[in-house]
Amino acid sequence: MLEELRNEVYRANMELPQRGLVVYTWGNVSGIDREKGLVVIKPSGVEYEDLTPGNLVIVDMDCKIVEGDMNPSSDTKTHVELYRSFPGIGGIVHTHSPHAVGWAQAGRDIPCYGTTHADYFYGSVPCTRNLTAQEVADDYELNTGRVIAETFADRKIDPLAVPGVICRSHGSFTWGKNPAQAVYHAVVLEEVAKMAMYTVTVDAQSQTAPQYVQDKHYLRKHGPGAYYGQGN
Amino acid sequence: MLEELRNEVYRANMELPQRGLVVYTWGNVSGIDREKGLVVIKPSGVEYEDLTPGNLVIVDMDCKIVEGDMNPSSDTKTHVELYRSFPGIGGIVHTHSPHAVGWAQAGRDIPCYGTTHADYFYGSVPCTRNLTAQEVADDYELNTGRVIAETFADRKIDPLAVPGVICRSHGSFTWGKNPAQAVYHAVVLEEVAKMAMYTVTVDAQSQTAPQYVQDKHYLRKHGPGAYYGQGN
Amino acid sequence: MLEELRNEVYRANMELPQRGLVVYTWGNVSGIDREKGLVVIKPSGVEYEDLTPGNLVIVDMDCKIVEGDMNPSSDTKTHVELYRSFPGIGGIVHTHSPHAVGWAQAGRDIPCYGTTHADYFYGSVPCTRNLTAQEVADDYELNTGRVIAETFADRKIDPLAVPGVICRSHGSFTWGKNPAQAVYHAVVLEEVAKMAMYTVTVDAQSQTAPQYVQDKHYLRKHGPGAYYGQGN
Amino acid sequence: MLEELRNEVYRANMELPQRGLVVYTWGNVSGIDREKGLVVIKPSGVEYEDLTPGNLVIVDMDCKIVEGDMNPSSDTKTHVELYRSFPGIGGIVHTHSPHAVGWAQAGRDIPCYGTTHADYFYGSVPCTRNLTAQEVADDYELNTGRVIAETFADRKIDPLAVPGVICRSHGSFTWGKNPAQAVYHAVVLEEVAKMAMYTVTVDAQSQTAPQYVQDKHYLRKHGPGAYYGQGN
Repeated sequence: MLEELRNEVYRANMELPQRGLVVYTWGNVSGIDREKGLVVIKPSGVEYEDLTPGNLVIVDMDCKIVEGDMNPSSDTKTHVELYRSFPGIGGIVHTHSPHAVGWAQAGRDIPCYGTTHADYFYGSVPCTRNLTAQEVADDYELNTGRVIAETFADRKIDPLAVPGVICRSHGSFTWGKNPAQAVYHAVVLEEVAKMAMYTVTVDAQSQTAPQYVQDKHYLRKHGPGAYYGQGN
Repeated sequence: MLEELRNEVYRANMELPQRGLVVYTWGNVSGIDREKGLVVIKPSGVEYEDLTPGNLVIVDMDCKIVEGDMNPSSDTKTHVELYRSFPGIGGIVHTHSPHAVGWAQAGRDIPCYGTTHADYFYGSVPCTRNLTAQEVADDYELNTGRVIAETFADRKIDPLAVPGVICRSHGSFTWGKNPAQAVYHAVVLEEVAKMAMYTVTVDAQSQTAPQYVQDKHYLRKHGPGAYYGQGN
Repeated sequence: MLEELRNEVYRANMELPQRGLVVYTWGNVSGIDREKGLVVIKPSGVEYEDLTPGNLVIVDMDCKIVEGDMNPSSDTKTHVELYRSFPGIGGIVHTHSPHAVGWAQAGRDIPCYGTTHADYFYGSVPCTRNLTAQEVADDYELNTGRVIAETFADRKIDPLAVPGVICRSHGSFTWGKNPAQAVYHAVVLEEVAKMAMYTVTVDAQSQTAPQYVQDKHYLRKHGPGAYYGQGN
Repeated sequence: MLEELRNEVYRANMELPQRGLVVYTWGNVSGIDREKGLVVIKPSGVEYEDLTPGNLVIVDMDCKIVEGDMNPSSDTKTHVELYRSFPGIGGIVHTHSPHAVGWAQAGRDIPCYGTTHADYFYGSVPCTRNLTAQEVADDYELNTGRVIAETFADRKIDPLAVPGVICRSHGSFTWGKNPAQAVYHAVVLEEVAKMAMYTVTVDAQSQTAPQYVQDKHYLRKHGPGAYYGQGN
């Protein structure tokens, strides 16, 4: 079932170790078939070398296993909650990439210090609040998704314009129109987090790029006036 | 003798340079056969490219050579002391991996800033005190093991819940149920030390993750209520 | 047309990912035929693995496409403006290499802390001012080039003695007598930016190298009295 | 002439890029035949891929070319001066490895923060003073060697116990009983410089390892009481 999406999700998962974003099993990718309401996701705790398109797990929007012999990623409820909250996205990646984790553990948004950031993330990459003890006890993974959605809602951030988040004391989630683009954004987020760390190393009081520069870079790549690339 | 354990210890040693944890001969792995009371360990100062299962050294719990033509690792007494003090462990790794050394040389515990850490180490990774001049003069390597054991005893840390330590002004020791898991913990410790360093680079006053988040992450991977992975 | 220059520009572009200077499509190289007044440049947004000498784009000094089916780099006007302002250069590279970006995002010149820097850049690598909102609105890429030229003119820096710049909130441009040398200078700039970051990590108050040491190192490699290398 | 030493020096030079210590031509290795009073050294500005045992240059103790068609390294006078000042050494390496340069550009000795350092360098790795303008004008490379020798003499450091130095605003020189050991020490110096940088990142006020720990580690590897390794 969902053979093409399986292959997409498989390839996207395999790209995580190739891009140096994950150690061991510290990451996962999913993709959604919006029509069928089904999500394909990495099985929990499986080494990438043992991963095949066939051992990916398919779950429905209630996180019930529809196809697959293995347990889905322990983060499955977070993924499904994000698909529910952000209707425009088709793929999600979770990693513990180290520079993104540095900002997440410090509890700081990643400021938009320059154009590399502005090309992909329109404004700061937000850092969520910590979950409460009650939220952790009730349903940790579901509430992780809810706190991400709350962060974007409260701060009026468009998840298509800022396709990623860092979760306080934890790691990153990124998304995109499909699993491959979600991985692309995971790579960019780690790179941008690294550059931001270098920036504060040079000067802890560094300022963000002027808003009009952020606008220019984001909009030359995105939306009706975009002119970067080959127009496809 | 102990052919299977020899192979395990050999493979675990070879993983150290493959994972980028050691330069030259700066690390070693051992494994123990608890029934026989024998420890298989890397010979001292041998390059990894020259290592074979056959040139590993077997010592007893008094560090007497039982099999092998070479001198065992100069850290052998530390390994044996740890096996004596921590009855639940089956393999030990020593490295000078650089980020772990950074914390060890600064004389600071590695705080549990987030979930990557909490997934494997239940609380701070402790940094031992320096040995006294007398302890160094009497038996440096034996006392290194004793000071590690003292650190865990004094601070009431369960060595199975915190499977590693950084030794003041020195490097790391990690352990596990077998040599392979001890290497796994050495990789995680270096990664966690790196993330913690990035965290203090962003904000030197960063706070540890809330205790209930640390509990949640550790316990979803360990113990009777664990649900990460495939249940094996 | 311009087959030899096409090949040079192609090889120089391919060197960017090989040297670890670019992620995805975040960089571009051009070369100029001064006699014909034509510039060969990377097409916009094309992955390096898909690049061929044949899909490079040729533009004239008004940035009109003379040969090629694809859109030229979105930074083409910056390149052409630099060729116009700096008549002695034959190749240009733009990257977002991370340490150079760190300094650019902090808005700081890269000080000449030592001889590695002085061997290639005669004095600080300047950081431009931010463009004004008006400059961004009018013609962002053209004005990026103009602000670079202005920086060198106002500060009386010879672009052949300091073959690179960091653009505030953005990234680096480097240049040379040909595309290969421009890439060489991009590699050096990133390395020098990294060393300078390490220098301020050890001591934020570090001093630049004495002027006579800067003179010595630059002049033993450049100009009539040079004696480094094989004299060719 | 000196075919065996040529091969040793060739292999040692080739190890520099393999170990990641040099970019382009930023480093060189030499070896000395003490009986004949001849030094084999890398030619100046030659890429490592173009290096062969045959294009190494042989000079005498007055830096006169005895064999070879190319110019010797521009640092030749520094090497020869070090061979003259330190009679116990047989090989010398110069690099601009980045962490060592960070300390050199900050003008700080690399403190002995721990046992990795103490295993190879008995005390701080000293940072020289800057040369005076007169010394640079008179004979820069010769005086670089003299200032290194002066540093060791003034501070009563045994160059066999501290087989390396960082030159203010410049880079590192290391040495050993032969070219291979000099490269080994260059690798260790860069690693130790990196660890020391991580140490001050965690705590800028970090203390050096106790003297008796430094003694223990150095002396378990060196001298008559050494017991590390296989006794050969």
